[in-house]
Order: sequence, then structure tokens, then C-alpha cells
Amino acid sequence: MSNVLIGNQEFFKGIGKIGYEGPESDNPLAYRWYDENRVIQGKTMKEHLRFAVAYWHSFNANGSDPFGGPTLFFPWDKNADVIQRAKDKMDAAFEFFTKIGLPYYCFHDVDVVDYGNDVAENEKRLATLVEYAKEKQAASGMKLLWGTANLFSHERYMNGAATNPDFQVLTHAAAQIKAALDATIALGGENYVFWGGREGYMSLLNTNMKREKENLAKILHLAKDYARSQGFKGTFFIEPKPCEPTKHQYDYDASTVLGFLREFDLMDDFKLNLEVNHATLAGHTFQHELQVAADAGLLGSIDANRGDYQNGWDTDQFPNNINEVAECMLIILEAGGFAGGGINFDAKIRRNSTDPADLFYAHIGGADTFARALVIADNILQNSDYKAIRSERYSSYDSGKGKEFRDGKLDLQALRDIAAASGEPEVRSGKQEFLENLINRYI
Amino acid sequence: MSNVLIGNQEFFKGIGKIGYEGPESDNPLAYRWYDENRVIQGKTMKEHLRFAVAYWHSFNANGSDPFGGPTLFFPWDKNADVIQRAKDKMDAAFEFFTKIGLPYYCFHDVDVVDYGNDVAENEKRLATLVEYAKEKQAASGMKLLWGTANLFSHERYMNGAATNPDFQVLTHAAAQIKAALDATIALGGENYVFWGGREGYMSLLNTNMKREKENLAKILHLAKDYARSQGFKGTFFIEPKPCEPTKHQYDYDASTVLGFLREFDLMDDFKLNLEVNHATLAGHTFQHELQVAADAGLLGSIDANRGDYQNGWDTDQFPNNINEVAECMLIILEAGGFAGGGINFDAKIRRNSTDPADLFYAHIGGADTFARALVIADNILQNSDYKAIRSERYSSYDSGKGKEFRDGKLDLQALRDIAAASGEPEVRSGKQEFLENLINRYI
Amino acid sequence: MSNVLIGNQEFFKGIGKIGYEGPESDNPLAYRWYDENRVIQGKTMKEHLRFAVAYWHSFNANGSDPFGGPTLFFPWDKNADVIQRAKDKMDAAFEFFTKIGLPYYCFHDVDVVDYGNDVAENEKRLATLVEYAKEKQAASGMKLLWGTANLFSHERYMNGAATNPDFQVLTHAAAQIKAALDATIALGGENYVFWGGREGYMSLLNTNMKREKENLAKILHLAKDYARSQGFKGTFFIEPKPCEPTKHQYDYDASTVLGFLREFDLMDDFKLNLEVNHATLAGHTFQHELQVAADAGLLGSIDANRGDYQNGWDTDQFPNNINEVAECMLIILEAGGFAGGGINFDAKIRRNSTDPADLFYAHIGGADTFARALVIADNILQNSDYKAIRSERYSSYDSGKGKEFRDGKLDLQALRDIAAASGEPEVRSGKQEFLENLINRYI
Amino acid sequence: MSNVLIGNQEFFKGIGKIGYEGPESDNPLAYRWYDENRVIQGKTMKEHLRFAVAYWHSFNANGSDPFGGPTLFFPWDKNADVIQRAKDKMDAAFEFFTKIGLPYYCFHDVDVVDYGNDVAENEKRLATLVEYAKEKQAASGMKLLWGTANLFSHERYMNGAATNPDFQVLTHAAAQIKAALDATIALGGENYVFWGGREGYMSLLNTNMKREKENLAKILHLAKDYARSQGFKGTFFIEPKPCEPTKHQYDYDASTVLGFLREFDLMDDFKLNLEVNHATLAGHTFQHELQVAADAGLLGSIDANRGDYQNGWDTDQFPNNINEVAECMLIILEAGGFAGGGINFDAKIRRNSTDPADLFYAHIGGADTFARALVIADNILQNSDYKAIRSERYSSYDSGKGKEFRDGKLDLQALRDIAAASGEPEVRSGKQEFLENLINRYI
Repeated sequence: MSNVLIGNQEFFKGIGKIGYEGPESDNPLAYRWYDENRVIQGKTMKEHLRFAVAYWHSFNANGSDPFGGPTLFFPWDKNADVIQRAKDKMDAAFEFFTKIGLPYYCFHDVDVVDYGNDVAENEKRLATLVEYAKEKQAASGMKLLWGTANLFSHERYMNGAATNPDFQVLTHAAAQIKAALDATIALGGENYVFWGGREGYMSLLNTNMKREKENLAKILHLAKDYARSQGFKGTFFIEPKPCEPTKHQYDYDASTVLGFLREFDLMDDFKLNLEVNHATLAGHTFQHELQVAADAGLLGSIDANRGDYQNGWDTDQFPNNINEVAECMLIILEAGGFAGGGINFDAKIRRNSTDPADLFYAHIGGADTFARALVIADNILQNSDYKAIRSERYSSYDSGKGKEFRDGKLDLQALRDIAAASGEPEVRSGKQEFLENLINRYI
Repeated sequence: MSNVLIGNQEFFKGIGKIGYEGPESDNPLAYRWYDENRVIQGKTMKEHLRFAVAYWHSFNANGSDPFGGPTLFFPWDKNADVIQRAKDKMDAAFEFFTKIGLPYYCFHDVDVVDYGNDVAENEKRLATLVEYAKEKQAASGMKLLWGTANLFSHERYMNGAATNPDFQVLTHAAAQIKAALDATIALGGENYVFWGGREGYMSLLNTNMKREKENLAKILHLAKDYARSQGFKGTFFIEPKPCEPTKHQYDYDASTVLGFLREFDLMDDFKLNLEVNHATLAGHTFQHELQVAADAGLLGSIDANRGDYQNGWDTDQFPNNINEVAECMLIILEAGGFAGGGINFDAKIRRNSTDPADLFYAHIGGADTFARALVIADNILQNSDYKAIRSERYSSYDSGKGKEFRDGKLDLQALRDIAAASGEPEVRSGKQEFLENLINRYI
Repeated sequence: MSNVLIGNQEFFKGIGKIGYEGPESDNPLAYRWYDENRVIQGKTMKEHLRFAVAYWHSFNANGSDPFGGPTLFFPWDKNADVIQRAKDKMDAAFEFFTKIGLPYYCFHDVDVVDYGNDVAENEKRLATLVEYAKEKQAASGMKLLWGTANLFSHERYMNGAATNPDFQVLTHAAAQIKAALDATIALGGENYVFWGGREGYMSLLNTNMKREKENLAKILHLAKDYARSQGFKGTFFIEPKPCEPTKHQYDYDASTVLGFLREFDLMDDFKLNLEVNHATLAGHTFQHELQVAADAGLLGSIDANRGDYQNGWDTDQFPNNINEVAECMLIILEAGGFAGGGINFDAKIRRNSTDPADLFYAHIGGADTFARALVIADNILQNSDYKAIRSERYSSYDSGKGKEFRDGKLDLQALRDIAAASGEPEVRSGKQEFLENLINRYI
Repeated sequence: MSNVLIGNQEFFKGIGKIGYEGPESDNPLAYRWYDENRVIQGKTMKEHLRFAVAYWHSFNANGSDPFGGPTLFFPWDKNADVIQRAKDKMDAAFEFFTKIGLPYYCFHDVDVVDYGNDVAENEKRLATLVEYAKEKQAASGMKLLWGTANLFSHERYMNGAATNPDFQVLTHAAAQIKAALDATIALGGENYVFWGGREGYMSLLNTNMKREKENLAKILHLAKDYARSQGFKGTFFIEPKPCEPTKHQYDYDASTVLGFLREFDLMDDFKLNLEVNHATLAGHTFQHELQVAADAGLLGSIDANRGDYQNGWDTDQFPNNINEVAECMLIILEAGGFAGGGINFDAKIRRNSTDPADLFYAHIGGADTFARALVIADNILQNSDYKAIRSERYSSYDSGKGKEFRDGKLDLQALRDIAAASGEPEVRSGKQEFLENLINRYI
């Protein structure tokens, strides 16, 4: 594991490298479940979970919300020089990455350095910080899980980026994507993410949805072609979200994005980056979104966080519910893990969590919840009837007439004749409560 | 217009044929907006709207709910003989159809006659009632908008029908579909609907979602092949719903169903039957669902009703909101109307609406709301800048570099170079409030 | 603990008395956490939790839902004689109560015997079954946690019971309440519950809400006066629910009911019976509802179940989420336990849980979740800083000017002067993530 | 009507005073329904509706949201001097007020001038602007509907203001309230509002809800006592909201606030200021909240806006739904209008509505919707059976035994005996669909 990497000043004084101490530890600054070297099904926890720290929440999000200004006044955000300020922030980030001991990070272009309105100048700024990050990656062993471009915060994107009715805005989106791809490639980033922050509509009254989606598909093709031409071998991820900031986002949920990828011939290069809170905003469990992606072979990566079931916006809290995360890990393990990606903590501490240590508590709690869920899920899969019970439910399709149906050998009349001949089927319990108890047995 | 058709007894005594009296009428048993012969854009209101009465809500739904028993005790539901009881109900239905003066009806198999557990006997019962319906159609001029099979009420479908883990149950679903297709064809039904009532899951823990969806697709193919072999020329509709009765229904919303149709090569024969209340349960406006379907060329038919924004289940109330329905009619008119289908009132009177006249008030209110919305939408499209404002927003893609992008002639680098050369784009208002006022101008 | 009590026939053959086997047991028909004799803070688990089986879900709910008929065909529901059928059901119920080994049960009048439309005859039927229940209580040691009257299922209550616009309907509600009170008293019931199933409105357009609430309050007073006159010493509970079956129920949530009790001078005799799923339908966590009641000294009893965060109706599933239930038990323990009531499983197995054993699995899982939560919560309160951290946050009010403010000794000007004099306050973290980790530490 | 008041520069060039032109006008910068002098039931529309412009949305809200920065760059927000900048903004505000032609405005302290961290300096700034506002009120005839203090935006309030665990923070809240009361009184403000922006909790784990609510009540008492001592005769309003920015706000909804006012003896001085979007976030129709307040005699004022039924946060859009607003005006008219307050447009244009004219369109659309609703509601009350139908439903309580019950002359036994004697009540339809049609008849 990487050593702690401190820059010109130490930003998180008094907090050292977070270690694993086991379930009985009362040390709030230690892992109780995340033991990166523990081997499960032939892989270490580190390899299974591939945790990444999200640059934006941890080093940019200052606690402001629609009803109030910042509450977190970062010591790394004080230098008047845009490049030095960005380097200070990167120092803080790598100090945190290496103290918290998670192997990956991820960022949007404007997370690492402030952008102005000049395309070439922005490219230069980003390139400067990419050089700086390269050095810090080398010194620390940190890796980039994925890069991305922020195409939603600037006022020019208020009507969308790739889906903007104004072609000039779309060209700016293209410019940012190109630079972010260049940065991702330069840093050995393993994937590249598209979250369509304002790719949607505020009102259908002024929107040509069909045309906007076609433009979005075109930009995705152009971005992929460019990245491949530059030697990028990684996966592209699309991250579904149903709404917020727009009234309706085109990448509503996993099924919607799958349909879009299929319609526009993007299935070979794109997979899904699923977020817990986006799933719940769309009316789904996260388990559902994972299963939809897994069934299509497109379970790429996840944004680990949680929403608030009583609040209808993206609260992006750190995960802590053991039952829910255990059920998610069951699906991830059965799917064979992530296709290229990992677990990015797209989660932020609360506006009133203003102690520097709070960022550590939050990541520790989140990582431990997933690590514990991994242990639970592995136990269930190895030691219980969980999988067998499900397989058995479908066994009537594995042979005889059921198999003939699956093989396309029976028509509607033939099925009708079987029904008429065999009479009323036996009643079979779904055994839901039994299975729910089984999960709790292993927690 | 058809004449009133009364059977052996008159069920809605004291209520005659509902006529059109104009907006100023205070007669609660008259149409104020639905004038079936009024011509708009070259078609009569009757041809535009293609209203259908839903057999199940109007003649079977007895007011019971999860917390209480029936409140509506139908005079047509008293005969001990299953066939005579079904004929009495059909007499009541056609009396209502012809008094309310709407041109279509639609039904599930078990709406018209009670089913037992014997496949052949059920087929016989349905065929008997089909013969009776044929006569009544001929006598009244009523037409069948679509038929369907109820694959969700019987206990055997508690774990799904085409998606049941038990092959025996699937064969019963096939048998019911076959008989319902035969009935639909015999009655000149113009379409056939699949609403996947329990095609979904109660718990992911016991479910193989991938396998279930594959089986569903197979059954749809077999049904289509059978119907085509019997000469059916109409359209098949799938009706999306996100949940209820199951926790999650596979036909979640329009986008999900489109993805499914595309994946399983069903786009040529299947279109969508969209329901207002299902849209809102899925977190969408109905306008959104309409636009998604229209953009794919699959806007087949609609279930006109409304939900309750404060209640999280399918309330299926009759539509009455003028603003909302006007915005829907804008999309339907711009899409060129329904592809094969019409407007079916999948709506029920409240449990405590126990007067026979209440069923008339409800249909009158629903039909008037749509008729008025048609007038409003037509005025907006004919007399306002509504369409021009939207087109103008996208005009930068109609020529020059924007068109080159649309035509696939620019790559990512080229777009970036345009951005760098042309600088920060001009800000353009979305004019949402202006457009919202414009709608109200025409109400 | 009571012995198994079997009537003329054994209904749950092959299942004996459920015992405690400890956390490592793989026996699905054993408790892993609920050890009724385990002592925590000086009381046994049995005394802390006071579990009750709900008669209606377990012995009447047949799996039907708005989209389908029964799936559970009870062997105790076959006798044509109304009294014998009711006795058979009661035999089944007491067999289950004593096999599952929980100390209490609870019922509505019509759960134990079917009612007709004759007031006196219904009273007689209920009295007959009360006599039968008395014997079975004596033989088994089972106790009645509470009784209640079902004032929502009969068609006469479609517009409300005590809030019905028709005085005649209100008199029938009064008659049922009187008989249910008599039954509760006769059986030594410890409490009496009012759940206002249809005390609300379907539409404000036809409703005089003020008048309806006044009538509701009057009936509650009359019921209380009658019961006290008959020697009843127990507590009356009101059970909040926000909607369903009505659009809006008057007993919306805990705060609303507290306001109502206060307005109509009912605080001395009435407390709250809170339900998990009703809390979530109202937009609250269950923890919130518990705390509101506890703060008012009115935390009477709970309906233990869970909703589905993605489905907007009352799913009444058995509880299984350890994190959530642990946080609830923290509040209940800090409040000193239930004021008179206990934990009633107002929960039902899924429609497709058709094995007789499923009812056992469900109760075992629910009881174990609460028992485990009790252990966790007790550990947190005994062994962690949980309470101290919270107290410390408010310590500025415990002395000095803060205390003077609490004691009413400072006016607005004085507060303003303190602010002006002392300058900007120090920032203090809420430490939410720290506390969330602390909960997981003890799971 | 007041004349247009322009300051040193004209901010909304090219837009003059908005006039009334009638329903057939196609001028988007004219009222089609709001004719301030039109008399309805003896009062002008201006007197009925008492419209107020909200300073904060219209002159401070710059289009930023949690996912992006400002899109509206106000010309009045450029001067480096804090006082001159505030005066420029006030010039813009009064120019808008007088061009749009609505009689009232309302503000938070920090809307009119930026605050720093020095109590005395802030008081001085506010006093300076109050003097300036006085002049502009005198010159224009504009009136202040209410004033308030912003106790949620500053970081010191991140854990609440009056409910903050830190007494020092509470003193700052008191200081701001005092200054805002002084300002309101100086400007002849007719009311004073408390919206508890962060009076709630982020997590129950760290919260003593009881203590926080008690402190809130104390501050309300102190504020009231201070204002009365300074001669304030107006009403205090509390504005309910269920959540956002906090997870749970103590002033959840109308019923919750009523219970609070009753518990803490504040009913004589406080009424409710209800907001449409807050109602819908709490799971209520706005009609419901209005009726609850009206029934308690506490319908003080409203925040007119609308939410988005698909988005779970406060969207604060301008009202435009005619059916919904008409039903609201029915309740307001039946209640005798607002007790002290009026209709404040707590609504903002969309982030992408960047033309200066958009602010005019939005207010025009909102005012016209309410004006039209007033006409509709008045017609319904004057010309239809609407009220009679409702009264008739309850007539059984107006005489005979029903009246005896209302008068407290019958006990439970007496009611039971009436039920037994009179048998099953007649079924009476609620006629909901009839009444819904009636509303549409008058639109």
C-alpha cells in the first residue's frame, strides 16, 4: 500500500494513515472491516472493491446548498494564483488519498483546476495539473479510476451541453470532452465517464427531444472515436440519473440508457456507471439497477452513496445500511465483479460536518460497509442455499416441454394444448420471507 | 351515431342518450365540448379521439379496495347462470355504450364472462359471449378498439404469467392469450393489448430477471405469429407500468418498453398503449411518455385517466385537468394522432360514487376534457408561434457547421476548433414562462 | 412460556414450538436473537418487546389485492356455520400463537367472527367468540394487547364512520365500538385502538372537514367515557396514517394527531400507536414518529412492519432492516419503553408466500430483527458516547446566559446585545457520519 | 394605481407599465385577466388578491443551483459599494414593482442589503436601506406585505437558528429578528413572517428535538413581545415546510404548526403563511393546507407558486394550472379571504429564462391565473349548487337525533340503540365526478 504523501504543508494534521484494526476496534479512525489484503474468492478486498475517492465532493464541495453559502472553508483554496491554488488542492487530495488508503481517485476537469472562458487557456491549465498529478501518482501509487468533463456547471450549459439547441454550445462541450480525454489518457485513467448533468429538459414545451438525443449520440460516437485514435483502451461509462438539475434527464435509469446504447449502436464501447441515489430517485432499488446492468453484461462501475428516502433530491450521503449493501454485493459478486470500474464514493459529508476528521469518518464508514457486505455476500454464496433456491424455481424450463419452449420448438397452440391437458398448476411459494431471513442470518 | 340499444331490461333508467349542448349548458347529462361531428383539421372529433369505454371498470369494478368490500351492487350481476349473467352484463354494457355515445369499447377475456379452471370450458364460454357481442355490435354500430387477456387476477399468476418460474403456468397464459386473440379477431377488434399485470417481481432475491424477460419476449413472438396466421392485421400494444401489483414491473415505462422491443426484435408489430396514471407512478408526466413514443413512431393508443399526485397507487380517476390534457393533445396532434388506437377511459368512479348517473357524469367529464383540449391544442398549433419558437431554437443545426455536424462531417477536434475560434456563445432564454402563458391564452 | 394449544385439528402440521437456538443456528424455524428470558437492563426481552400477533393479517388476509383474488385458501375457513368457522379460525390462531411463542395477540371485531347487518346479532356473535377466546387465553396464557373495531370495510363506511356525513352511519360506528370495547374489557385487553380507516376524505369538494373532525372527537370522548364507566383502566391509542384507503386521512401523522388530541382535550386518555409503514407513507422515518410521540410522553405502542420505499402504498411487510430497527430501539429504550402497549406485527406475508411455514418464517424474522436491535441499542446506550455526544451539543443552555434564556429571563434586546458583544460563534460539527459509524460499530 | 418609478438608470428598458387588455389579447406583456379595478363580491381584484412581489427571487436569485453557477448577471449588482449596490437593486425592484403594477412587495433583511458578521454594522446597513425604501414607497404607493429575517443562509445557522444547539448562534438569530422587526415596523409592513429555514434536523442521532422546539417557541414569544412593545399591530405568520434544506423541518405542514401554536400558546398572534410547493412536498394538495388553516381561523397569507410533481425539491415555479388554482380560490373565498396577508409570488423564473422580459411574463402569468381563478370561484359560489350540495350531505346533523349528538346529549349506548333500531343506512353517493365536472363548467 502507498505511503502517505504530504505536499508543502500538511492539511489534515493529527490524522495519520488509517489502518485496519478489526470489528472490535473502537478507534473511529480505523477500519473495522476493510482489510485491503484479505482474500475472498481468490482476490483481495482491494481488488474486489477498487475504491476511489471523488475529487469534487471531498476537495471542492464547500457545504453550500440552495438555501445557504459555504460552511467549509478549505485551507487549500486560498492562493490567488489559479495554478498554485490547484496544486495546493491536489496536495491536499493526495494527502487524503494516501492517509485514507484507498487505491483510486476520479475527477472532472474543473475539479482539479478552475476554468475560464478561453478554450486554449483551459486546456493549458488542465495539462499543467495533469503533469503535477502524474508526479504525485508516481510518488504515491495512486491510480485514476476514471476522468470526466463537467458539462453542467457553466452558464453556457444551462440548456444542455451535447443536447443544447445552440450548436455553438455543443462545440464547447466537445472541446471540454477532448481535453478531459487527453488528461485521462495521460494519467493512465482506466475508464471515462459521461454523466449528462443537463442533458435533458426543463420543459417539453420548448424541446425537440428526438433531435437532442440524436446529437447526444453523435457526440458520444465522436468522443469514442477520438479516444480510440489516441490509444485509449478503457471503457466509457454512462451514468444514469432521472432528474435534477433538469426536470427530466435523458439517461433516466439503467434500462433507458441500455435502450439508448442499443438504438445508437454504442453497446460495444459503453457500459454503465450506476449510482445508488440516482437509482432511488428513479424509483428503483440500487439492486435493481445493478441487476439490469449485469443481465446486459454492462455492469461497469458504481457511485457508492445513499439517498434519503424522505427527501426527493440527490443527498449523496456515505453508505451505511448493511442489509441494503449486502444485497447489492450479492449481485455484484454473482455478476463477476465490475467490468473495468470500481466503487467510487460519490458521496459528501453533511453541510454541518465541519471537522477535518469528518471526511475520514465518512470514507471509513463507507468502505467498511462495503467490505462487510462483501464478506456477508461471499458467505451467502459459498455457504447457503441462496443460489440453489432460485435455480430450482426455474427448473421446469431446464428439460422436457419447458426446454422445448425455451428452444423455440413450441407454438402458441402447442402451449395451449399443454395447459388444457395438464390442468391447473400446483401452487409454489416464492419464499420471500425465508430468503430475507437468510440474508440476516449472515449479517 | 348509433342508437340506444337496450336488452331485456333497462339498467340505466331515466337516463337517455347523452347529447351535445355546448359550453354554456348546465345540463350535467350533456356534453359541453364533445361534439362528435365537429371537424378539426379535416377530421371529426369522433375520428380524432376514438373514445372507448373500458368494460372492466364500468361493469365489473364493484368498489372494493384493499380495505373494504363492494359498494356497487350491479343489477346485471345477479343471475346464477354464468352465461346468462354475462349476457345481462353485456346488455348493460351496450346500453351504456350507446347512451353515452362513444364509438368503441374494449375488454379482457374475463371481463365479459367468468372463467373457471378448465381451459376448454373457458374457451367455450368466451366464444358464446363473442357471438352475443357480434350481434350487439351489428345492432349498435359499436366497435372493439382492442381485446386482451387478464393474466394477473387468477392465483396461478401470482408469480407472473409469461414470466412465471413455472412452465405450467406459462402454458395457461398462452391458452388465455390464444382465446383472447381469437375473440378479438372474431369481433373485428382493431388492436390487441398486453398489459403485464404481474410480469415483474416481488423480490429480486428469488428472481432470475433475465430469464423471465426472455420468456416474455418469446410469448409475445408466439402470440404475434399466431394472430398473423389467423389473419389479424391490427397492431399489438404493450402498456407500460412501473409497479403495482408487483414491486417492479418489467414494462416500467415507455423507454424501457422501447428498449425491450428493440432488443427482442418486436418493433415492427408492437406499439405502445400509454396510461396517464402509469406515467405518473413512473415519475414522468404523461406528456413525456407520449413524446417518447411519438419520437419512436410508436404512439399507438392511450389509457385516459388521472392519478392522484399525493397517493402512490393507481387511482385511475377520470381526467379533468384542462392544462395537462391540453399539453397532451398538443403532442398527439403534432404526432399525427394515434397509430391504430384511440382513447380508452381506463378510469373508474370513486368507491363512494354509487349513483347510476355517476358513471355517466364521469365519462362526460372525461370526454369533454379531451374534446376541449383538442380544440385548445388545434388553436395553438394553427394560430400561435408555438411551433415556430421551438424550431427556431434549433436553427443553428439547419445550416453551416451545425448542419455539417448533423451530417457526420465533423470530428471532435473540428468541433473543439470551432469552440476555440468562436468564443463564448451567446446566452439564449428558454422562454418557458412565455410558453406556459401561451397555453393558458388558448384555454 | 405457554404450551402449544391445538384445537380439534392441527392446522400447522409438522411445525412445533419455535425455540431459541442462538445466532449461529441455521434452523429456519428457530429464533436466533429472540430469547424471551434474556435480561436486558433489568427486564426480559419478553417484557421489553411485548410482541403481539395480528389476527387479521395472519388468519384473515387471503392474498387478494386490487388486481387479483385470493391465493391463500385457509383450512380454517371452510365451515358453513358462521360460529363454527370462527371457532376453527380461533383454534388455528391460538395454535399459531402458542407455536410461535409470542405473548400477545390483537384483533378487530370482524376478524374473529363475520358480521352481518344486524346490530344485535353481531353483538351476540362477538360475545360468543369472546367466551371461546377467554377459555383459550386461560388454557394458553396468551394475553390481548388490544382490541379494536373495523369501521372501514363495510360499504356503509365508504364515506367515513365517525366522520360520515350521514348521522345514521355514525350510530353504527358507535354500536361497533361499544361491542368491541365490551369484548376488549371481557378479555382483559390492555389497550384499545382507533385506526381511522376511512376517517378522511376522497375529495375536498364534497367535504366539511371541520365538522367531520369535530364529530370524530365527540365519538372518541363518548367511547372513552363508556369504557371508563365499564371499568376499563387501559390506554386508548390512535394510529396515524396519512392516506389509503382515503385520499387524506385526518390522523395523518404523529404531530397531526397530537394537535388533534390537544385541541379536543383528549391528551389524558389517549396515546399513539405508531406504524412503520404509515410513517414512511407520511414522508417520515419511523424514528421521527417515535421521537415525536416520546417527546410528548405519548409513545404507546407500535405496529411493526416495513414499507417498500419504491412503492407508494401500505405493503405491510415484516421488518428486516437491522440498521433501521436498531435506530428505532434506541429511541424506544431512551423513552423508557412503551406506555401500555407493545410491538404488534401488523405485517403480512407476500401474496405468493403460500406455504404454511411462510407465516412462521415471517414472524421469526420480524421478532429476531427487533430482538437483535434491542441488544444493539442497549449496547450503544451502555457502552458508547452516543448519549453524551448529544447532551454535550446542548450544554451551552445548561448554565450562564443560555440557562437564563431557557428560564425566561432574557428578552429579545438582551439576546441581541449578547450577539453584538460576543461576535461570530465558533463553528461546531454535527458529527453525523461519526454517529452513523458508531451505530454500525454495534451491529 | 402607482406610476412607474425609475431610479438613476432604467433597468428594464423597452418594457413599460403592464396594462389590462382582456382575455382575447395576444400581447404577452399585458394582463388578460388581472384587472385590478374589477369588482367581485364588493371588493376589487386588487383588494381580494393583494399580490406581492418577492424581492429575493426577482432581484437576488441569479440562476445558480446545486449543479451550476449563476446564469443571470444583474446590472444592479455591479457597484463595489455595498450600500450603493443595495440602492441600485432597490431602484430596479421598484421599477419592476411599478411596471408590473402589483401593490405589495416583501423581503428578508439580507435581500435588500448584504450583511457581514458585525451585528451593529448590519443593523446600520439595513436602517439605511429602510430609509431609502420609505422614500420609494412614498413616491410609488407600494406597500410592504411583510418583512422577515433570513436565518438560514449564513454558515452560523447550519445547525439551526432558534433551534441551534449553540446558544451563541441563537443570540445572532435574535439580533437579526429584532432588526428585521424594526425595519418592518418602520416601513408600515402589515405582517411579519417566520420561515424556519433550518429549524429542523439533519439527523435525529445528534438532535434533541424537544429542546429545540421549546427554544423555537421561546424565540417566537420574545419576538412577538418585542414587536408589540414597539407598536406593531400586524400578524405574525409561520410558514410550514416539510423538508429542504434540512432532512426534516419542524414546521412540517399546517396541522403540525397548528399543534405547535396551540401547545406553546401562540394562537392569538400567529397565523399561517402557506406555500403551494411546500404543501405538495409534504404530501398535501394546497387546497388541503388552505382548508386546515381556514378551519382554524388562521389562513393568513400565501406563497403562490407551484412545484413539479415529478421532482422532489422546491421548484418554486410561477402558478399556471387553472383547475388547481380555481379550487384554491374557492376555499379562500369561502373563508372570507386572507387574514392580514395576501398572495406573494414566492416563485422564480427558470435558470434558463435569461431575458429581462421573462420576469414580466412570469408575474403576468401568475397574476392572471389567480385572477381568472377568482372569477371562476366567484361564479361557482354565486351561480351553482356547489355549496348547497355539500351542506345537504351533512343535513342529518342539523336536526333530530343528529343534532342531539352534536349538542352532546347522546352517549355511546344511545347511539348504539339508534343504530340497532333504525337498521342499515341508505347508501349516498359522494358525487365527486359531478362536482369535478361542475368546476370545469365554470372554467
